[in-house]
Amino acid sequence: MKLLRVGTTGTERPALLDETGTLRDLSGILPDVDGALLADDAALARTASRAAAGDLPVVEPGTRLGPPLARIGKIVCIGLNYHDHARETGAPIPTEPILFMKAPDTVVGPHDPVLVPRGSVRTDWEVELAVVIGRTSRRLETDEEALAAVGGYAVAHDVSEREFQLERGGQWDKGKNCETFNPLGPWLVTPDEIADPQTLGLRLWVNGTLRQDGSTAEQIFPVAEVVRYLSWFMTLYPGDVINTGTPAGVAMGHPEPKPYLRAGDVVELEIDGLGRQRQELRAA
Amino acid sequence: MKLLRVGTTGTERPALLDETGTLRDLSGILPDVDGALLADDAALARTASRAAAGDLPVVEPGTRLGPPLARIGKIVCIGLNYHDHARETGAPIPTEPILFMKAPDTVVGPHDPVLVPRGSVRTDWEVELAVVIGRTSRRLETDEEALAAVGGYAVAHDVSEREFQLERGGQWDKGKNCETFNPLGPWLVTPDEIADPQTLGLRLWVNGTLRQDGSTAEQIFPVAEVVRYLSWFMTLYPGDVINTGTPAGVAMGHPEPKPYLRAGDVVELEIDGLGRQRQELRAA
Repeated sequence: MKLLRVGTTGTERPALLDETGTLRDLSGILPDVDGALLADDAALARTASRAAAGDLPVVEPGTRLGPPLARIGKIVCIGLNYHDHARETGAPIPTEPILFMKAPDTVVGPHDPVLVPRGSVRTDWEVELAVVIGRTSRRLETDEEALAAVGGYAVAHDVSEREFQLERGGQWDKGKNCETFNPLGPWLVTPDEIADPQTLGLRLWVNGTLRQDGSTAEQIFPVAEVVRYLSWFMTLYPGDVINTGTPAGVAMGHPEPKPYLRAGDVVELEIDGLGRQRQELRAA
Repeated sequence: MKLLRVGTTGTERPALLDETGTLRDLSGILPDVDGALLADDAALARTASRAAAGDLPVVEPGTRLGPPLARIGKIVCIGLNYHDHARETGAPIPTEPILFMKAPDTVVGPHDPVLVPRGSVRTDWEVELAVVIGRTSRRLETDEEALAAVGGYAVAHDVSEREFQLERGGQWDKGKNCETFNPLGPWLVTPDEIADPQTLGLRLWVNGTLRQDGSTAEQIFPVAEVVRYLSWFMTLYPGDVINTGTPAGVAMGHPEPKPYLRAGDVVELEIDGLGRQRQELRAA
């Protein structure tokens, strides 16, 4: 299933993209798309069954898409997790996953504007595969357990301010938590639709120019390994999100003058099977 | 006011410690103690007025204390923010606040057990002044604006796994987000009771031995400066928490063999005017 949330900010209701490409309103059968739903196999099965019947109300065209997940608990991000991206930053290949965090309040819908922070001259893009947790997970032992803990996949834009992240006195979180810095969606796709999370193409364009064109095959630590590893350092709960890293092609990796984002720029990004985002940059 | 939340985990109800030292149940007049309450001056005034009347139901003695704040949005932590602690770690004095993050799911009540992670041999203590945000804050200009954004103060225990934090491949968050790693409370104290947040004594004992005995006067970046600074890197919302750093005396700062925490140890900590915590360490 491709689950969504539609409506104005703060009043989103659950929805589904059906097999015919039609958006269907789920608010009559589900309270919301959140961790509780992902942990509830019976509710997911009921939703799929109702969707197959084809009689759910159609969402009015032009309705805003919100983030496809409500009540996100935490967002854990993996740094330098693609061979090609680690090379372009000049960093050594990590021997263990590097992790940092974004606050859930950075999450916006896939077509919402992204704000360039006041004073920023190094706002950068990062297309990422987001993994959404569906099962409470502590100290997972195997890849099978780790993949069974995944409740869905989505496109995430891990917007990053490089000066804040790297030159303002410590810890990357400082450049990762600006307002609107984590567009998510359009869809939350259940794992039955993703045969192998390590074969997904990821692409990102700025003002129509292709800037990132990678594959999750290039991940240093694949999804199963990331979920398993994290579960030894923290408890993962349904509704937690893991941004699994970005491939090469970010602005920081370019020769000077680096093409950092400015108000008026348009970023588009997509991942195979997970849909497409489009954001206009604006001044905060 | 000294606000609390009492009851079993996940079913806490709001409460108040009155002038006579009696715990009063607020569930008849408030939905909960959360960011929405802290942002609502009228609701706070009504609560104070009802508490002064002395007719609120008494909480049954022995009721568990939960964390004094529900629906925490994010927890931002300031690293190396005391002159004496920076010296003991051998780190240079920061020129700007260092920040890292803890997930709200690490928060437990002030007397709940703390779990030593599986495989951990360097679990450490840190008594900290927690600042709770009461006003949405972006790009604050002055100390006055920053202090006006504070909705309350509390004791936080920023439990830390030093090997995970410093020796496992990048970013401190890895050693800060283990389950139960952020006891909070007992009280959320409104700012009218804290005449000056820079004159508070902080103390921590392990198995009865005094290990930390500091003062917020030693903070490199005082509360107002921390709130003002953060508001330029992220938006602060009511119900966000800032752990403002720990004074000297952590296990990591001792000569070998360093007295890291083990199952069976008992940690007690307190801050002037904000109450006292007590946790037993257990194996995860």
